[in-house]
Amino acid sequence: MKIEAVDFFYLSMPVVTDAGDGSQDALLVRVRSGDLEAWGECEASPLTSIASFVCPMSHGACRPVGASVLGEDVSSPADIARIAATIQWNSMDLLQAAHTWSGVEIALWDLLGKARGEPVYKLLGYQKAFPKTPYASQLFGDTAQETLEFCRIARNNGFKAVKCGWGPFGRGSVKQDADHLQAAREGIGPDGILLIDAGQIWNEDVEAAAARIPMLEQVGATWLEEPFNGSAYEAYGALAPRSGKVKLAGGEAAHNVFMARHVIDIGKVGFVQIDCGRIGGIGPAKIVADYAAAKGVTYVNHTFTSHLALCASIQPYAGLKDHTICEYPVKPQAMAWEMCGTHIAPDANGEIRVPDAPGLGIAMNSAGIKKYLIDAEIRVGDKTLYQTPSLD
Amino acid sequence: MKIEAVDFFYLSMPVVTDAGDGSQDALLVRVRSGDLEAWGECEASPLTSIASFVCPMSHGACRPVGASVLGEDVSSPADIARIAATIQWNSMDLLQAAHTWSGVEIALWDLLGKARGEPVYKLLGYQKAFPKTPYASQLFGDTAQETLEFCRIARNNGFKAVKCGWGPFGRGSVKQDADHLQAAREGIGPDGILLIDAGQIWNEDVEAAAARIPMLEQVGATWLEEPFNGSAYEAYGALAPRSGKVKLAGGEAAHNVFMARHVIDIGKVGFVQIDCGRIGGIGPAKIVADYAAAKGVTYVNHTFTSHLALCASIQPYAGLKDHTICEYPVKPQAMAWEMCGTHIAPDANGEIRVPDAPGLGIAMNSAGIKKYLIDAEIRVGDKTLYQTPSLD
Repeated sequence: MKIEAVDFFYLSMPVVTDAGDGSQDALLVRVRSGDLEAWGECEASPLTSIASFVCPMSHGACRPVGASVLGEDVSSPADIARIAATIQWNSMDLLQAAHTWSGVEIALWDLLGKARGEPVYKLLGYQKAFPKTPYASQLFGDTAQETLEFCRIARNNGFKAVKCGWGPFGRGSVKQDADHLQAAREGIGPDGILLIDAGQIWNEDVEAAAARIPMLEQVGATWLEEPFNGSAYEAYGALAPRSGKVKLAGGEAAHNVFMARHVIDIGKVGFVQIDCGRIGGIGPAKIVADYAAAKGVTYVNHTFTSHLALCASIQPYAGLKDHTICEYPVKPQAMAWEMCGTHIAPDANGEIRVPDAPGLGIAMNSAGIKKYLIDAEIRVGDKTLYQTPSLD
Repeated sequence: MKIEAVDFFYLSMPVVTDAGDGSQDALLVRVRSGDLEAWGECEASPLTSIASFVCPMSHGACRPVGASVLGEDVSSPADIARIAATIQWNSMDLLQAAHTWSGVEIALWDLLGKARGEPVYKLLGYQKAFPKTPYASQLFGDTAQETLEFCRIARNNGFKAVKCGWGPFGRGSVKQDADHLQAAREGIGPDGILLIDAGQIWNEDVEAAAARIPMLEQVGATWLEEPFNGSAYEAYGALAPRSGKVKLAGGEAAHNVFMARHVIDIGKVGFVQIDCGRIGGIGPAKIVADYAAAKGVTYVNHTFTSHLALCASIQPYAGLKDHTICEYPVKPQAMAWEMCGTHIAPDANGEIRVPDAPGLGIAMNSAGIKKYLIDAEIRVGDKTLYQTPSLD
């Protein structure tokens, strides 16, 4: 199959706020080959990523992502890996390339699955997709009372696991953080799985993070996520042996396999969190899943956007039975919901499964995409390098 | 001083080839405050970087670079560091941000130096700028004979040090590489400092790199640069104890201080090469220079573009007397030469010095910039987010 067209659709809510809510805009990628149409999604700045796909070449190691994709043949998983390797070389000095390529790569797996009539996890070598336990991924409330209410709602909605992140956590005193943690535990109940996301708040200050460990242990938190800068592996590694029953989690910033390995090997995390929309897509994420499993580290998806992104993010570890925790955006913006026609809902046991359908198995919703589609244009000299494509 | 305007100028040669020659296009940054005008340069894809400066916000941790810069006050080096920290936080999920901010940051040092009437290296805390030994940074020839001629020309032009990189090196047999190395040594003469750049050709294949060590020792190469992927610190660390008299060099891909520290601590390089136009500017580069000096590692600039970029790249280690080697683009494209009115030429001893003038001390050449200026426009909805600004 020849990659005949790669089209980017920039979607956005009418108003985007500075909340730590990644579902306010999206960059969808549509790939076409013959009669087949496939979809992927970048977890990235839409306009910047579009620019990196269409920009003029700067030199041999700084070529636009598109130059390594358009017209290429994709007949097997090895072809996707080949194109990825070409981009790693040809766009070595184009920093945004990994984020941009991620959405294209996901669409190529969807394409290949549709062509072969197989779900992506089977193309990855898994025989079966095991159910995952979704955690409600949400922000801390502005007050402990709000955190309590958010967690209670998640529990009432059937979630066995809840993650609270960002917001005021780590910005005030240890006491204020303790209030939020106790509120979260009270909200989800004694048996709920409680996950805490510090959102890099301590940069590389190990002591500031260590000061929160006793109360995290007290409320039975399963993990402390991203206490530090995504590249501060040594800080992770220094905190890990001091974190008691609380495991560290991290890795969402990884934009290549090397970085994910460093989070595991140097950062000594118990959970490695990979965003398929950043690391270069499903292929490199699967490599990390295998590596994590071999090292006794639990793989977890990182997803805060649509159910297309969610479904893609589960494929790399769909077949790892014991890696059950799964990030599930619980309060996505209307745009992130409406762009998809298929959604992955928890079953009666509160578990989710990827669709057993060709490719990613997610139908897109044209009306939903149109509703939030942004009209954009990039021109260099007398050439229009990008113009919002037609959905038809 | 309030940052009143930040303008990006995208320059390009009329024809850009896929050679590994980074001087074929450029992204200049002009900052204005009151009557002062200052300049910086990104080492990055121009269009992608412009997009990341002006793009709409995606969420609180994916804001455009411009949002953290425009209107800010810059009255001291601490202010520049403060803005850098804001960007690290506000643009955490915008991968391109580091490359984009780098050029702005360099311009802010130029601005501050001009306001205070002091060269940038003094603002960094150095009392004196020591001379550097420029090496002619050039590509291997397509044939060993061509490599010989290129090196002979560099020697005849007064260069005591020559670096050959990319081209055919590492792509063929060990024997072919040996021929190029011997040709290079013959060309620069027995006393010349010979540096070899493998351009990441072996990704993380330690044995492939190790196979070249004996001949690198035989021709007396001072360093082997970037044998591996910029993030493959473990591969560097595995090769380092096996590289004999040849030291490893690397770090140009670092887009934050953490990555540069990893190249030193895990990669065990003897030379750490920092590109101010990628790592976030002069401030983080100075932090790396201090770190390297403390660890017994030699700091080297990475520069393959204009003399504005060259001058900026020397400031962070201008005061380190024993760190003498300096990358010097020997055959830049006309664009990279003509954009500057001031050039840094080797003296009778073959040494170079940064100008002892306020800021970076490089005058820009309006006519040269105009000659290569690219007309570009980015529009989102009914807003024009970027349009090539006027030079006046």
